[in-house]
Amino acid sequence: MFADKLFRKVSDMGNPTVLGLDPRIEFVPASIRNKQVSGAKAIREFNRKLIYSLHDIVPVVKFQSAYYELLGPEGAAVLKESMDFAKSLGMMVILDAKRNDIGSTAMAYAEAYLSPEGFDVDALTVNAYLGSDGITPFLELCKKYGKGIFILVKTSNPSSGELQDLRLDSGERIYERMADMVSCWSEGLFGDSGYSSIGAVIGATYPEELKSLRRRMKGIPFLIPGYGAQGGGAEDVKFGFDDNGMGSVINSSRGLMCAWKNKKYEGRYLQEDFCEAARHEAIDMRNALAEVTGK
Amino acid sequence: MFADKLFRKVSDMGNPTVLGLDPRIEFVPASIRNKQVSGAKAIREFNRKLIYSLHDIVPVVKFQSAYYELLGPEGAAVLKESMDFAKSLGMMVILDAKRNDIGSTAMAYAEAYLSPEGFDVDALTVNAYLGSDGITPFLELCKKYGKGIFILVKTSNPSSGELQDLRLDSGERIYERMADMVSCWSEGLFGDSGYSSIGAVIGATYPEELKSLRRRMKGIPFLIPGYGAQGGGAEDVKFGFDDNGMGSVINSSRGLMCAWKNKKYEGRYLQEDFCEAARHEAIDMRNALAEVTGK
Repeated sequence: MFADKLFRKVSDMGNPTVLGLDPRIEFVPASIRNKQVSGAKAIREFNRKLIYSLHDIVPVVKFQSAYYELLGPEGAAVLKESMDFAKSLGMMVILDAKRNDIGSTAMAYAEAYLSPEGFDVDALTVNAYLGSDGITPFLELCKKYGKGIFILVKTSNPSSGELQDLRLDSGERIYERMADMVSCWSEGLFGDSGYSSIGAVIGATYPEELKSLRRRMKGIPFLIPGYGAQGGGAEDVKFGFDDNGMGSVINSSRGLMCAWKNKKYEGRYLQEDFCEAARHEAIDMRNALAEVTGK
Repeated sequence: MFADKLFRKVSDMGNPTVLGLDPRIEFVPASIRNKQVSGAKAIREFNRKLIYSLHDIVPVVKFQSAYYELLGPEGAAVLKESMDFAKSLGMMVILDAKRNDIGSTAMAYAEAYLSPEGFDVDALTVNAYLGSDGITPFLELCKKYGKGIFILVKTSNPSSGELQDLRLDSGERIYERMADMVSCWSEGLFGDSGYSSIGAVIGATYPEELKSLRRRMKGIPFLIPGYGAQGGGAEDVKFGFDDNGMGSVINSSRGLMCAWKNKKYEGRYLQEDFCEAARHEAIDMRNALAEVTGK
């Protein structure tokens, strides 16, 4: 099942990093753009190169659906091909699509992404504003196919508190209630790792909330975005890990895709060297995370 | 701008109905399925026939993205072709995709669906659990391209209250706070119709909430799902309309697509007659709504 497979892979590679592939065409070097006939094909090549360069050190890749939908009808094929390539190299695949709907429509999303006949990802991000009707179909297919979902709880963006931090008359905040709903939905989906296939998205940019949610949500895997370009560092995400250094995976998108621009490399890399720079940065990130997990 | 165009069209046709195209392959008659080489192509033909049969009486068509994503990479092309066909016949197009993300990713979704280079729909449904960061990019493109969004406020499903009905320490319920956030985001986007291009999704299955939200959200267009198959009727949605019979559009998906199965027609239609049955049902729905709007 999903969580066991995820944390075995993280443990084997000694790295909880997730490579985020949110490619905009301006991230793709001119050498690739000039030889490909379309933006979609250029992004496909960009993805392949990054995936190949990092697959032996980064266990998981997360595709951000928006950037493929932006490519029009061709985008879905690029997404599928990139995901299949990552899987062929042994990486686990998360699709960050934040899908949400009810009943038979939620089931259509679940089938589209989690079933072997569909995009067949290992896990999908989901938004639970609609309550159980929007989540149950995903739980069913997680069980059936050994897949996972990550439900939005406390997101990494500056305005996440506008709704999520509001206090209920019971005294809890909305994101805390959402956290408890996630724990409730996770029942019956725990694996040998002690973790459930039903996870939560918690932003690296809110370390205090992360700390309290780690205590509140026992056995719930966290997908933590906001590392790197959004300002989160290893010290911010350390509270996501359990005593064994497991329990969370940490996403970096622009931090890896655009590592060549990172000021700390002082002009060492050109855009053409994006893979070498991404590998350098992925190793730095792995080492920084190893310091806080003690692994 | 969007709301003016929407309500002019509704007024011209004397009908606030939205045809919901949420096609599953089992909704498609055997005669179409047997002659087409793929499920995607069969659904494309099914859509074309329904759109053509209803375009002179129904002003708006809403595509449910999940069912096209379920078709795999081919689905996005079917969606685009079906939408373009509806537009070519003068229908307005809403994409029900409930997208949500932050910053540059929300902008990628907004560009993908609202820009003339993208899918170029008239309006998109959006989920605002992430707060302003997730909405501002859509507002920007609504302004730039004269498009609209409908933000989930109180959804039609039985479990919508699990989160949306929780009471805040201020005394309001979450969906009421969401309603006020929508009103806030709508500022500066009002047209001559008195309505904003920023709308709300409110389920037909909650008439009391609909009534109070209509008072609370002045000038906010409502997209009301839940009519027909989900149990809502004309009496339930009447509170969505203003004194001029404007302010809301009412979606029916299975009620129109599968009208041939409706018990009230007592076996009058076979599945092959789905277009004739849909037209019959669309006229009945228009007349039922005219009774409550007084138009």
